[in-house]
Amino acid sequence: MSSAFNPAPADRVVGHEDSIWMEFTKLAQTHQAVNLGQGFPDSPAPKFITDILKDISAKPDLTAAHQYTRGYGHPELTNILSKMYSHLYNVNVSPMNDVLITVGAYHALYYAFLGWINPGDEVIIIEPAFDCYSPQVKFAGGIPVPISMTVPEDAFSASQFTIDFKNLEAKISDKTKMLVINNPHNPTGKLFTRQELEKLAEIAEKHNLIVIADEVYEFHVWKKEDMIRFASLRGMYNRTISIGSAGKAFSITGWKLGWAIGPQNLLAPLKAIHQNCVFTCSSPTQLAIAEAFKIDWPKFLKKPKESYLATGLSGELIQKSNKLAHMLAKGGFRPIAPQAGYFMLANYSNHNHNIDMSQETDPADFVFARWLCSEKKLAVIPFSAFYSIQTEKMKNCNFIRLCYFKKDATLTDAKKILKKLGKE
Amino acid sequence: MSSAFNPAPADRVVGHEDSIWMEFTKLAQTHQAVNLGQGFPDSPAPKFITDILKDISAKPDLTAAHQYTRGYGHPELTNILSKMYSHLYNVNVSPMNDVLITVGAYHALYYAFLGWINPGDEVIIIEPAFDCYSPQVKFAGGIPVPISMTVPEDAFSASQFTIDFKNLEAKISDKTKMLVINNPHNPTGKLFTRQELEKLAEIAEKHNLIVIADEVYEFHVWKKEDMIRFASLRGMYNRTISIGSAGKAFSITGWKLGWAIGPQNLLAPLKAIHQNCVFTCSSPTQLAIAEAFKIDWPKFLKKPKESYLATGLSGELIQKSNKLAHMLAKGGFRPIAPQAGYFMLANYSNHNHNIDMSQETDPADFVFARWLCSEKKLAVIPFSAFYSIQTEKMKNCNFIRLCYFKKDATLTDAKKILKKLGKE
Ligand SMILES: Cc1ncc(COP(=O)(O)O)c(C=O)c1O
Ligand SMILES: Cc1ncc(COP(=O)(O)O)c(C=O)c1O
Repeated sequence: MSSAFNPAPADRVVGHEDSIWMEFTKLAQTHQAVNLGQGFPDSPAPKFITDILKDISAKPDLTAAHQYTRGYGHPELTNILSKMYSHLYNVNVSPMNDVLITVGAYHALYYAFLGWINPGDEVIIIEPAFDCYSPQVKFAGGIPVPISMTVPEDAFSASQFTIDFKNLEAKISDKTKMLVINNPHNPTGKLFTRQELEKLAEIAEKHNLIVIADEVYEFHVWKKEDMIRFASLRGMYNRTISIGSAGKAFSITGWKLGWAIGPQNLLAPLKAIHQNCVFTCSSPTQLAIAEAFKIDWPKFLKKPKESYLATGLSGELIQKSNKLAHMLAKGGFRPIAPQAGYFMLANYSNHNHNIDMSQETDPADFVFARWLCSEKKLAVIPFSAFYSIQTEKMKNCNFIRLCYFKKDATLTDAKKILKKLGKE
Repeated sequence: MSSAFNPAPADRVVGHEDSIWMEFTKLAQTHQAVNLGQGFPDSPAPKFITDILKDISAKPDLTAAHQYTRGYGHPELTNILSKMYSHLYNVNVSPMNDVLITVGAYHALYYAFLGWINPGDEVIIIEPAFDCYSPQVKFAGGIPVPISMTVPEDAFSASQFTIDFKNLEAKISDKTKMLVINNPHNPTGKLFTRQELEKLAEIAEKHNLIVIADEVYEFHVWKKEDMIRFASLRGMYNRTISIGSAGKAFSITGWKLGWAIGPQNLLAPLKAIHQNCVFTCSSPTQLAIAEAFKIDWPKFLKKPKESYLATGLSGELIQKSNKLAHMLAKGGFRPIAPQAGYFMLANYSNHNHNIDMSQETDPADFVFARWLCSEKKLAVIPFSAFYSIQTEKMKNCNFIRLCYFKKDATLTDAKKILKKLGKE
């Protein structure tokens, strides 16, 4: 084999960096650590969901389940989603025009940036932020413009993360094309209030911005009424691409199905890329998710106590989040109580004496998270990974992010580690 | 709702055209036509495959099946694929480095072009060609350079499609970066000979080209020995990105799982885009396909008569292709017998009197295919759709493409239509 063949890749991939998940997933495996890092449940998937896939798999002659389906989405799935979101946004969401099914929310975000952002266009990203927005914007040639939420030093609730709207508006230039809102918020667990969202809507309107509303945790709220969807705000549907995830909604992250919802003109560029990229998504899982929504949605509306999305999910999450907060406190951490989602932040400054920063160039929380994983066998994610710019302030960041949507055995293992740590 | 919001999409999607499938899929539905158009089986999926997915779905606690798996591919799947292709290519295919799992072969092709092609780079495409290559190359900013295979007017076998290698070499410039080979070939049904492939290898080597070997129909050959994989040719693994499809291999096109196989340096740009695009693919179907290969592969090697991939698939295909050829002949068409794959071409010039071209600007075969669908309720694809440049010659093209991988009831329905047509 000749080793001489070494062509140059396309410029668009040059400078690509491995995502944070690579390092911390590998580290967790290497040390066989209790994993509260990556955001997925390790508890069993809801049986009513897997049973639907089982039933579909029992029918090999069901062409609609095993062969190519409609490119922009399986009609069964786009139909039920249009019904749901027409209600939730209080607008008419067309199943044929206003819905695009994608390979998870991640894929919908990729399309949204690539479809709308030209080289030099600016995108406002409220930080801390889910770590794919910024690389995806850059991949499209755009410029991520971060604005940091502020939070008091001694915060105890995720609601204390707030946006300085003056500061945000000051970052808007004539190059600004888009604003990304993630609600409920990863990694803080914050749930935006109507007031906050209306302020953002006002800014979007004033500066004529497209809004990406990443609402993958829309059903992970303690009370369903608390979730204000951005597209439901007056006039906002027309400028919003709302993004959802079946993997998150039904706690089956591995199925990787998501969607973008928005008016036809906003979705058109996403569909154009979809036609070049994957053309169509997996039929069996689309059909299964359609069935799942068809079962759960009427309950969500009329019998919330029987609905997985209305109360089943939140019941589990509230209980687990309380448990983890308690454990963290015992372990000498200061947890910030989440209002929604999978995640919780915790201040670890009581443990600063455990790490030696004198030779380090990486941010303190990276060093701490590595130490916690390799020495104490507990895997978490450093908070500063959710900031695009490693400012001096971030270098001394004393927060970690933990995922509490884990089975009781995992949480109990974590509890032991934390208890020991608290006594040291 | 304000209708004033009408921002401009990214330049990269401007000029996008709907794919041919949109028109002909819709047309088939509208006329409730017997559909021999799009390339998927409408017969039941193999039960042993759907049973595996059923078993996996019966285990909601199987995290490896329902939660996020490794980004570049589920370890179970990359392991078995590396085993298979190490044997088939006679090289060492690393499961961790040389395999990338994608959302169908389509997605792997998208990554390959976007990862390697810079604006202005040229890609040689042997035409007729699967209709996604050219738009995907253009989406990456590249220039598709078509070269037409030649075929005698009275061809009766797909082997009569041949490449004029001198002509091909004449199209290579210092901008040429890539050569796309599709074998077995869609839409002709041609299976390239070792001699032809070695000639292409020689050209690739001489001009230092990356080769995309789209081999999605690699198991759809009448005898497994007849399939020469491009990466198995001397020295070629190092310059080849081989592309495969579980949807095609196991006749479950709707599962949309595929892969790119190649040396680490050739896959690196594809992986970089993958990390921005979907991050990871569907776990349950990856695990199911891994299991399917683990069952079938040992049989493929040692007991081919019991192997779906070695003989089960081809047995069905040979029988169906003979049946369709026979029906077409009775209907006054001149079929070109395929050597592999799903598809068959047929000359319809005996039916030219049925269409009126006097007012038409579209190619004749589009007009004929529309007529056949709307008037005779038989959906097929016009052959000229597989050419990027509508030359004058293509305007008078008298071929259609038919998919024969359809259940007997569908073929019998088509038979009735063709029989009637033959008598008219
Ligand atoms: C805020 C946010 N958006 C999007 C995603 C991606 O979701 P999916 O798995 O549906 O691609 C995640 C996953 O962690 C997330 O936290
Ligand atoms: C030659 C060729 N390549 C690629 C594909 C796409 O395969 P997949 O369904 O795995 O994306 C097809 C599907 O028809 C094809 O014919």
